[in-house]
Amino acid sequence: MNAIDIVIMAAGKGTRMKSRVPKVLQKLAGRPLLGHVLATAQALHARRVVAVTGHGAPEVEAYGAGVAGAAGRFDLKFARQEPQLGTGHAVQQALPLLADDGLVVVLSGDVPLTEAATLQALVDAAQGERLALLTVRLPEPTGYGRIVRAADGGVQRIVEQKDASADERAITEVYSGIMAVPARHLRRWLGRLTNDNAQGEYYLTDVVAMAVQDGVPVVAHRIDDALQVAGVNSPVQLAELERAHQRRQAEALMLQGVRLADPARLDLRDDARSGAPAALSCGPDVEIDVGCIFSGRVELGEGAQIGAYCHITNASIAAGAVIHPFTHIDGEQAGVRVGEGARVGPFARLRPGAELGPEVHIGNFVEVKNSTLAAGAKANHLAYLGDAAVGERVNYGAGSITANYDGANKRRTVIEADVHIGSNCVLVAPVTIGAGGTVGGGSTITRSTPPGVLSVARGKQVSIAGWQRPTKKARGA
Amino acid sequence: MNAIDIVIMAAGKGTRMKSRVPKVLQKLAGRPLLGHVLATAQALHARRVVAVTGHGAPEVEAYGAGVAGAAGRFDLKFARQEPQLGTGHAVQQALPLLADDGLVVVLSGDVPLTEAATLQALVDAAQGERLALLTVRLPEPTGYGRIVRAADGGVQRIVEQKDASADERAITEVYSGIMAVPARHLRRWLGRLTNDNAQGEYYLTDVVAMAVQDGVPVVAHRIDDALQVAGVNSPVQLAELERAHQRRQAEALMLQGVRLADPARLDLRDDARSGAPAALSCGPDVEIDVGCIFSGRVELGEGAQIGAYCHITNASIAAGAVIHPFTHIDGEQAGVRVGEGARVGPFARLRPGAELGPEVHIGNFVEVKNSTLAAGAKANHLAYLGDAAVGERVNYGAGSITANYDGANKRRTVIEADVHIGSNCVLVAPVTIGAGGTVGGGSTITRSTPPGVLSVARGKQVSIAGWQRPTKKARGA
Amino acid sequence: MNAIDIVIMAAGKGTRMKSRVPKVLQKLAGRPLLGHVLATAQALHARRVVAVTGHGAPEVEAYGAGVAGAAGRFDLKFARQEPQLGTGHAVQQALPLLADDGLVVVLSGDVPLTEAATLQALVDAAQGERLALLTVRLPEPTGYGRIVRAADGGVQRIVEQKDASADERAITEVYSGIMAVPARHLRRWLGRLTNDNAQGEYYLTDVVAMAVQDGVPVVAHRIDDALQVAGVNSPVQLAELERAHQRRQAEALMLQGVRLADPARLDLRDDARSGAPAALSCGPDVEIDVGCIFSGRVELGEGAQIGAYCHITNASIAAGAVIHPFTHIDGEQAGVRVGEGARVGPFARLRPGAELGPEVHIGNFVEVKNSTLAAGAKANHLAYLGDAAVGERVNYGAGSITANYDGANKRRTVIEADVHIGSNCVLVAPVTIGAGGTVGGGSTITRSTPPGVLSVARGKQVSIAGWQRPTKKARGA
Repeated sequence: MNAIDIVIMAAGKGTRMKSRVPKVLQKLAGRPLLGHVLATAQALHARRVVAVTGHGAPEVEAYGAGVAGAAGRFDLKFARQEPQLGTGHAVQQALPLLADDGLVVVLSGDVPLTEAATLQALVDAAQGERLALLTVRLPEPTGYGRIVRAADGGVQRIVEQKDASADERAITEVYSGIMAVPARHLRRWLGRLTNDNAQGEYYLTDVVAMAVQDGVPVVAHRIDDALQVAGVNSPVQLAELERAHQRRQAEALMLQGVRLADPARLDLRDDARSGAPAALSCGPDVEIDVGCIFSGRVELGEGAQIGAYCHITNASIAAGAVIHPFTHIDGEQAGVRVGEGARVGPFARLRPGAELGPEVHIGNFVEVKNSTLAAGAKANHLAYLGDAAVGERVNYGAGSITANYDGANKRRTVIEADVHIGSNCVLVAPVTIGAGGTVGGGSTITRSTPPGVLSVARGKQVSIAGWQRPTKKARGA
Repeated sequence: MNAIDIVIMAAGKGTRMKSRVPKVLQKLAGRPLLGHVLATAQALHARRVVAVTGHGAPEVEAYGAGVAGAAGRFDLKFARQEPQLGTGHAVQQALPLLADDGLVVVLSGDVPLTEAATLQALVDAAQGERLALLTVRLPEPTGYGRIVRAADGGVQRIVEQKDASADERAITEVYSGIMAVPARHLRRWLGRLTNDNAQGEYYLTDVVAMAVQDGVPVVAHRIDDALQVAGVNSPVQLAELERAHQRRQAEALMLQGVRLADPARLDLRDDARSGAPAALSCGPDVEIDVGCIFSGRVELGEGAQIGAYCHITNASIAAGAVIHPFTHIDGEQAGVRVGEGARVGPFARLRPGAELGPEVHIGNFVEVKNSTLAAGAKANHLAYLGDAAVGERVNYGAGSITANYDGANKRRTVIEADVHIGSNCVLVAPVTIGAGGTVGGGSTITRSTPPGVLSVARGKQVSIAGWQRPTKKARGA
Repeated sequence: MNAIDIVIMAAGKGTRMKSRVPKVLQKLAGRPLLGHVLATAQALHARRVVAVTGHGAPEVEAYGAGVAGAAGRFDLKFARQEPQLGTGHAVQQALPLLADDGLVVVLSGDVPLTEAATLQALVDAAQGERLALLTVRLPEPTGYGRIVRAADGGVQRIVEQKDASADERAITEVYSGIMAVPARHLRRWLGRLTNDNAQGEYYLTDVVAMAVQDGVPVVAHRIDDALQVAGVNSPVQLAELERAHQRRQAEALMLQGVRLADPARLDLRDDARSGAPAALSCGPDVEIDVGCIFSGRVELGEGAQIGAYCHITNASIAAGAVIHPFTHIDGEQAGVRVGEGARVGPFARLRPGAELGPEVHIGNFVEVKNSTLAAGAKANHLAYLGDAAVGERVNYGAGSITANYDGANKRRTVIEADVHIGSNCVLVAPVTIGAGGTVGGGSTITRSTPPGVLSVARGKQVSIAGWQRPTKKARGA
């Protein structure tokens, strides 16, 4: 087998996107289109990948280099194509970076959903020094170049719409833009390309006729799944691919046994901020209600239940945990952990470094950041826990706040086991509430308290009789 | 008419579900599949229902018994089928529990959406000692057993895909798996079943040939609605039925005059926790925005408006009430009531025992639990009301909390009419704020206050000049 | 060209809507159906519009007068049709209000989505004293009146379903109910209408035969877009049109370059309360996540990102701002402004008069109303800001509240630049916190504070040893 070298066309502007972002950096499922193609290239174990860049080349190359760097040993090179004189011209720019002994697979940076298995089959078809075209059967082939086959099934030529006879127009097999071709043939053929056509461009597809001329067998690997070769040229096409991709991800989850209330209302994406790739791993009997969004790496343990409209990023939810609707969890780089049997939400927010032990309860309008809560701790109502260590069975009262930020530094609050914090308290960090202690409602605690005591810090209650409540002022008075 | 006895096949494992839950306990619209079938059986006024159980029999029987118990006089028996040797074998297990004078309707526990009217028509077709098959016309019948009819329309036989001639394969009418058969015939035919086939199983469908042989007329009641006979074998099929069922529920609501912003984004379910069956009753001119979820018994009065993404369970919303988006209402067992013209949300949560009078306003980030609010009371911002009785026209300030839980017991707070509670107050229960009183902002109230007075409990304000604000520490310092 | 006068049929009851609201006042995308038709009439520069009213005439006329008043010089008159004796009878009621020199375009008040360009083409077709019918090609024309054309393409007649021959039934071009007709012909023909038919009604379509009889050319302007002539007779049809309309709005946005995560989950509507028409204007590279709802006038600057499930009404979001999921913004009449690079949400609510400067951060469970926040100010957690002026770089602590309402009047809070407000504070308006000052956590501030000082107002912290925490009471004790 020849080594696989890949050329990715990534020079296009994408005028119809009406965007300042280069087309191949437009995102599908949170990842630039080019990132999808690079991931496929990596799955194919390509020896080298050459991305041909042009419009927005610095951004495109910076992105590609980042992906290659993150992927470890991944040999990605760039070739600039300026100006853009056609697909053949694009591949010509890559030639100096390609060895003669390889099999070159030509991909498009704006065709994100080709499966590695499909390309492997294409590569297999090209073995024995053949030119292999990836083709697709379209119910509506109008406008596409048709594949004209000989009686033996071999490809004779690609005929463009305008040149096709009535019989040829009836052909539903079309060329996808993806081919695999022995490098030494490719080099020879590209040298013979001309731009003697209406657009004045160099067309890569002209190599098909040259192959036939040279007696190099031309074969086609045909698929029926148009999504795998669909390109993105406009926001409408991008949205169509996004939904189709999301639908397939949903189906893959269901095949694993995940129960989805509505497969059309699930989104699973890369987390652009942390860079974590979309990866939702689910134990048995996970249930996900409508409208949920998962980003980055998310683990859901056996029997975990995710309520409607949850937004979960970079988090690990243990077995039997229940995430109520409208819960926002974002672990960013640090991650979030939710323990077994914990209950979170509705309207809860867990931020990076939130670590909930088993059976912890986090209720409505509660925010937790960079804090650990030990088994059985509860913060059920309108509260903020930041930079805190909360012990087992602590009850953290409604409206209470850890004042962890003095305007300059973040400081830690320690709430030991079995503490009961009353309502609307402020715990001014650094401070420790000793085990088994109680803090009276409405107290602002600025000094640590010993174990077992009741601490209060509040004004004396007085009633003022005869006080007149303000009355509505007349306008203009 | 013969009495109707029903046999429900409920022994299957459902391997493709990849779940530890027995297949017939998988949920559609919040109710186990078997529960849907039992509800249909009850609607048919069946004399007896025999569920044939196998995989997960203890759980399945416990669930069934619970349903039958809740339904009152509902004669449900169980027959174990171990091992599972085919559909005919399954029904054989039920025979000892079936009287000879009845008409037996054989249903599948994983076919949830058969309508009672359809089965009644099938039963009617079986009158006069006939074998009646429920059939369905499928656009794509490949793989299913075709119904071969004689010139007079009577059924001659069911021919399996592999045995079918080209003409027979063109038949689009297929057997649904549901039949109605006189018990005395069924008993005789089941006694003659053999497992002389490739799978070594006893097939219930073999009784069709026996009926023809015995001169018992075989008739078919044909429907065109494949959804009614669709079974669940995988999460993908479960999700398809879920969406189709939800869509039908949405259409039924619209036929009643309910205005739905998007019928594809409405979910109406049983409430699994309270056991309340899905029942959404709407007065005239109810409007429901996108993405709402209703569970259990929910009543919406005339002109009620439900905003986007509301999640409402076991609640009664009176005429003219406006529920703003992102409102979570869950009455569990106790229920929630929202009075006429009340306004709730956005981002509000009403919990069990919340009872809002007319024109009450509950605003953002407010939680109400087990509390009554009389006409015109308002809690508009970031507040918690638990175990409280709130009088007419009370204004409950932003950030205020009823401290109803002392760590061991829940106690009540009474706020009498026309009270004004300031911001960030704590009312430590048990406590009563007398009518017309005012509580100053930031006060923690631990003793009841007389009517009409201003109560405050807070520290004296002091300003400390020359105080130095903390500065950012250098790392490593 | 003749002046255009428009007759809108707006008398129907809409029995199948099962509503107390007259049919033409049912809302599509937040606007009454009649409002859509009036907007189209205005786009056509009609000289006069006559709405023929009947059921619910007072409400319908009040709504129409309001629209016409808001639109400035817009000559809208009403003609009552009581009782309703057919479409011809309806137009007869309008005749006294129509001049003889005009071209009358007859529209239906329950057909909301006809495009002005379509009607302009119809008007053009009617030039030269012709009767022009708007027709549509339907894949399923059964039940509709077919357009029978002569060999030259001219319309010979409309044939109803029941009268149609087999050949005529094969015609897929049907009459839409919309026509353009010279007023003087219309007046003559309406005078000749009879109700000599099964229903005893006067049919407007009878004028076609009269035109042929009189030698007036009858032409048809045919469209293929059935949505433009679809009427609303039931909640199901209303929902279908709603979704189709929303889908088209989404596509129009994508054509402008807006990137939508799911075009099927976007809603763009009039704001019924403020009366603002649906108008979403987007700069380049705007991204909108799933499930968002926009009402009224909303501007999104370049690169603005709108998270999932945001609900935004009458607001201006500047370039580079990030609105996190579950954010509710409603500017009502006063509007909301979000500055460049600001970050809002998740779970934030911005109300009328919220004006956020550049780089302002508003976090979870925070409500802002009628307040300005200068550049770099932050209110990140569980807080309320109402009637406040917040200076640059202010840090407004978790749980803090501006007590802006004394039960009778709203008063202002001023927080000058660089102030640090601690957690769970109450600022009792009117009050000013001087520049650079600090307010200690848990303080209730009732008097203004000088610049640069630390202000505290809280009780002394005491610990009470030996205090016994309450224990769970035995039931019945």
